[in-house]
Amino acid sequence: MSAAIDFYFDFSSPYGYFGAMRIDELAEKYGRDVEWHPILLGAVFKTTGSAPLTDLPMKGKYSLHDFERTARFHGIPYNRPPAFPLPTQVAARAMLWLQSKYGAEQSIRFAKLIYQAMFVDGVNIAEPLNVLDIARKNGFGTDGMAEGINSAAIKNQLKAEIDLAMARGVFGSPFVIVEGEAFWGFDRFDQIEAILKAGKV
Amino acid sequence: MSAAIDFYFDFSSPYGYFGAMRIDELAEKYGRDVEWHPILLGAVFKTTGSAPLTDLPMKGKYSLHDFERTARFHGIPYNRPPAFPLPTQVAARAMLWLQSKYGAEQSIRFAKLIYQAMFVDGVNIAEPLNVLDIARKNGFGTDGMAEGINSAAIKNQLKAEIDLAMARGVFGSPFVIVEGEAFWGFDRFDQIEAILKAGKV
Repeated sequence: MSAAIDFYFDFSSPYGYFGAMRIDELAEKYGRDVEWHPILLGAVFKTTGSAPLTDLPMKGKYSLHDFERTARFHGIPYNRPPAFPLPTQVAARAMLWLQSKYGAEQSIRFAKLIYQAMFVDGVNIAEPLNVLDIARKNGFGTDGMAEGINSAAIKNQLKAEIDLAMARGVFGSPFVIVEGEAFWGFDRFDQIEAILKAGKV
Repeated sequence: MSAAIDFYFDFSSPYGYFGAMRIDELAEKYGRDVEWHPILLGAVFKTTGSAPLTDLPMKGKYSLHDFERTARFHGIPYNRPPAFPLPTQVAARAMLWLQSKYGAEQSIRFAKLIYQAMFVDGVNIAEPLNVLDIARKNGFGTDGMAEGINSAAIKNQLKAEIDLAMARGVFGSPFVIVEGEAFWGFDRFDQIEAILKAGKV
């Protein structure tokens, strides 16, 4: 098996959510693993000078419609979240804590649950109690989770992961690195499939 | 035949060029006409607060690579232009002048020649003499063209066309409006095909 595919995402990113619903399936088709990396676009935007799509003049209204249409086009369940965009450091840190405790596979299962809570069930995932609730309801042992999320260790890990991502050129969500090639956006999943199939685009 | 598809583009936009190489073929497949509308992204960016992709931190380097890769993926000839991005008001006004003189079909043929000069042959299309040369070499009568490009009438027409485009929500290149739905980006040509086929996405 070749090196894992790196998948970067922010939990408040609709296109990140679409990518999250497809990346494992795509990788599996070509016998590849995926490493999931939660990032905070807010931190990235400080460097790029960018802003959430929906805050941008003209693009904002367009994007809200495009999220719904793109979900429909790809057959992905989607309901416009009542709270959007929202801060995602709690969800990202929760994922890292679960990863340290239960391993990568379980943390990926959790990430998908968080995304679905946000983009299907309208849960406000900026609220720590909601994040804990999602873990608990889905069979995760959550003893020590609240403390873990607020620990300096997990906070520093997330910060370091984001610095590392930016050093690799990551500036958006979803963002995929495979065979040394960087792909920004759910729009590029067709090119990612091409590279998985043929080793190049 | 249903209403024409509106296709908006800036001559300095690589994704606009890719769209220009595909839109007529796509429309024809579903028995539709295309109305081509040159715009100036510089004017649009004043409203949206955006900037050319290649000027943005991190996104700039990524984009230069993505242009080449996306061209390859779609089998479209592409050579990174030595002068890029560049001002496109001369090319846009030349297109409008040819349209007024020889009709829409000929002006579309000219638009494709301009795009190919820029993105295949490395011609600096900001230079009026080069634009005239492209017209002349390809069988257009260019008597009065230089004056036409600089006339108040053509300048005002381009300005009005851009105002109209922005009033319709156009903020990027390529930008397509069909069946009342707006699509931004060459990435959305798959969804445009879906709407042409089924009347909806």
